[in-house]
Amino acid sequence: MLVSMSSTAGLVIPCKAAVAWEAGKPLVMEQVEVAPPQVMEVRIKIKYTSLCHTDLYFWEAKGQTPLFPRIFGHEAAGIVESVGEGVTDLKEGDHVLPVFTGECGDCSHCKSEESNMCDLLRINTDRGVMINDGKSRFSINGNPINHFVGTSTFSEYTVVHSGCLAKINPLAPLDKVCILSCGISTGLGATLNVAKPKKGSSVAIFGLGAVGLAAAEGARIAGASRIIGVDLNPKRFVEAKKFGVTEFVNPKDHNRPVHEVLQEMTNGGVDRSLECTGNINAMMSAFECVHDGWGVAVLVGVPNKDAVFMTKPINVLNERTLKGTFFGNYKPRTDLPSVVNMYMNKEFELDKFITHHVPFSEINKAFEYMIRGEGLRCIINMEE
Amino acid sequence: MLVSMSSTAGLVIPCKAAVAWEAGKPLVMEQVEVAPPQVMEVRIKIKYTSLCHTDLYFWEAKGQTPLFPRIFGHEAAGIVESVGEGVTDLKEGDHVLPVFTGECGDCSHCKSEESNMCDLLRINTDRGVMINDGKSRFSINGNPINHFVGTSTFSEYTVVHSGCLAKINPLAPLDKVCILSCGISTGLGATLNVAKPKKGSSVAIFGLGAVGLAAAEGARIAGASRIIGVDLNPKRFVEAKKFGVTEFVNPKDHNRPVHEVLQEMTNGGVDRSLECTGNINAMMSAFECVHDGWGVAVLVGVPNKDAVFMTKPINVLNERTLKGTFFGNYKPRTDLPSVVNMYMNKEFELDKFITHHVPFSEINKAFEYMIRGEGLRCIINMEE
Repeated sequence: MLVSMSSTAGLVIPCKAAVAWEAGKPLVMEQVEVAPPQVMEVRIKIKYTSLCHTDLYFWEAKGQTPLFPRIFGHEAAGIVESVGEGVTDLKEGDHVLPVFTGECGDCSHCKSEESNMCDLLRINTDRGVMINDGKSRFSINGNPINHFVGTSTFSEYTVVHSGCLAKINPLAPLDKVCILSCGISTGLGATLNVAKPKKGSSVAIFGLGAVGLAAAEGARIAGASRIIGVDLNPKRFVEAKKFGVTEFVNPKDHNRPVHEVLQEMTNGGVDRSLECTGNINAMMSAFECVHDGWGVAVLVGVPNKDAVFMTKPINVLNERTLKGTFFGNYKPRTDLPSVVNMYMNKEFELDKFITHHVPFSEINKAFEYMIRGEGLRCIINMEE
Repeated sequence: MLVSMSSTAGLVIPCKAAVAWEAGKPLVMEQVEVAPPQVMEVRIKIKYTSLCHTDLYFWEAKGQTPLFPRIFGHEAAGIVESVGEGVTDLKEGDHVLPVFTGECGDCSHCKSEESNMCDLLRINTDRGVMINDGKSRFSINGNPINHFVGTSTFSEYTVVHSGCLAKINPLAPLDKVCILSCGISTGLGATLNVAKPKKGSSVAIFGLGAVGLAAAEGARIAGASRIIGVDLNPKRFVEAKKFGVTEFVNPKDHNRPVHEVLQEMTNGGVDRSLECTGNINAMMSAFECVHDGWGVAVLVGVPNKDAVFMTKPINVLNERTLKGTFFGNYKPRTDLPSVVNMYMNKEFELDKFITHHVPFSEINKAFEYMIRGEGLRCIINMEE
């Protein structure tokens, strides 16, 4: 049998990458060398990537471990260029979404029906190398450049562990579904897999950024009849209406705790709440605003390291449930292909999340939009 | 149709009751008058009652609202003497368990599949009267004596809202099943209805009193393979073995947090935990000792009013679940009859919970046993 092989397989590929040399300084377009994939690794050509807040946080490195020079980027879509030894489920030409967390398939988490927190490939933001040999696949003049969360998609080519790649429907438009590799799936899954609102129920969403709006989209899909958006920015509500948000609460408009406002609006509390900001006070409000007896609050946003969640035990004893989720409880390899197919079946839209486009050469503009809080997702076209 | 009527129906019944005149002072056996049941109320003859910690706390009234004179008692079994207007599902002679919380059948909680926290009849420890007219059915020389949680079972006769009575299998021995009206069902239901451990899983139980041991019994019924008891009192382990507890951890034996000890014993954490002490530190440990990805902690014990539950949000975000339960999530009228039948079918034992017996005339001995921490349940025979 003749196996088609990429002409670059086994060779170092020189290509363009946007390198962060220092915390908070604009990325610099550099020529980097990308080594071939090793055991259980895959080299992919990135077609589209987008920018997510996590990239921004680690680039700013305020309170996060600084690790530079580094190639950021983790929300993307690409095509397999070549695979390393032992990779049997992917081949050249496959369309894939790289994911910041993985699925080894063998650990207790991968074997659990409930967890997606793989022991081997769970996100590690402090690691700048591949787990196989503890080294980077990126270099400039022989000097290694750090990876970011195992994906580093701000490069024309990147090397990813095969457990961190979802093989998707080849008909899916990569300039849209790239945003399913992180934020949108996180919000959507938080609602559909964890909060699980019933048809006709009420759902509060704290934070109407891309993740929160994807959570709202999940609530709409689940048939919630009231989707109450909570945000400090009143401009967000206009956009949020497109995502099925039916009511809006700005905590600044009230001189009492927002959980009380929500309880009053919903005769005792919402059926479900999702916290998508990472603000500790929002987390506590999100828990206390759910109805006693059956309410479920789901934490999605990642807080400051020093934050402490506090509540009176009676709030728990009165039959409220507090849950947390990571990547919407989706297992990257097992579940993401069907999320892509949900999109292909028009169960939800992605266009409305995509507010900006920039060519790869202008990637720093994407950072500027996000810093200014403009729009939701900016698609970076690697071939422009 | 000829309906059999009790000869006392409609009349005031004079009978013996153990009255608490002052906080912390021995109960006094008094002759009280028990008025007939009003709309939706039922008068029952108590056959057996037992003492639960909640009686003790409100009798001591340290930090609890003092309300005296009062007739305590809420864990009991009896027989219907007569019913008030509108009561159609109970009649003279029915065997019943009075419950400190109720089920009106009409509110959003009663209509929810998940909640048992009835809006109308939910426990109210500060109320000493019946909800129908805001008055007591007990009096001595015309002076009212306060009710306790709508049950006041330390009396030969008592009046209870019909929504707070479970009609049970008439073949069930009342001297055993009386303890199903509070503590034992609370622990059993916390495991079977809320924690829901899978077959072969690991369960930690914090606090090996009657409620904790009933929770352990639930874990055994569910097929848990490891049931780890956590208690500060090493004597408890001997008893606990009878309830299926397989391992014992005394936090005093370790110089690091008990959740770390449990995580080490179980390769990352237990699958389920149940907190049955009400101690706030035990609550936080019970949450942090469950495995990330799928662990569920259930709070059962009622804490001090000023206690605050605190945890790092990452403990939640790593896919742990925190739940609380009230009366094991059993709906008193709907669910207790089947718990009694589980006992009748020998799915669990009650004898091992019953460590003492006293005649009603010696009810103060039951208080002494509990204060000294002796045994689990003391059955008080109303006819001795």
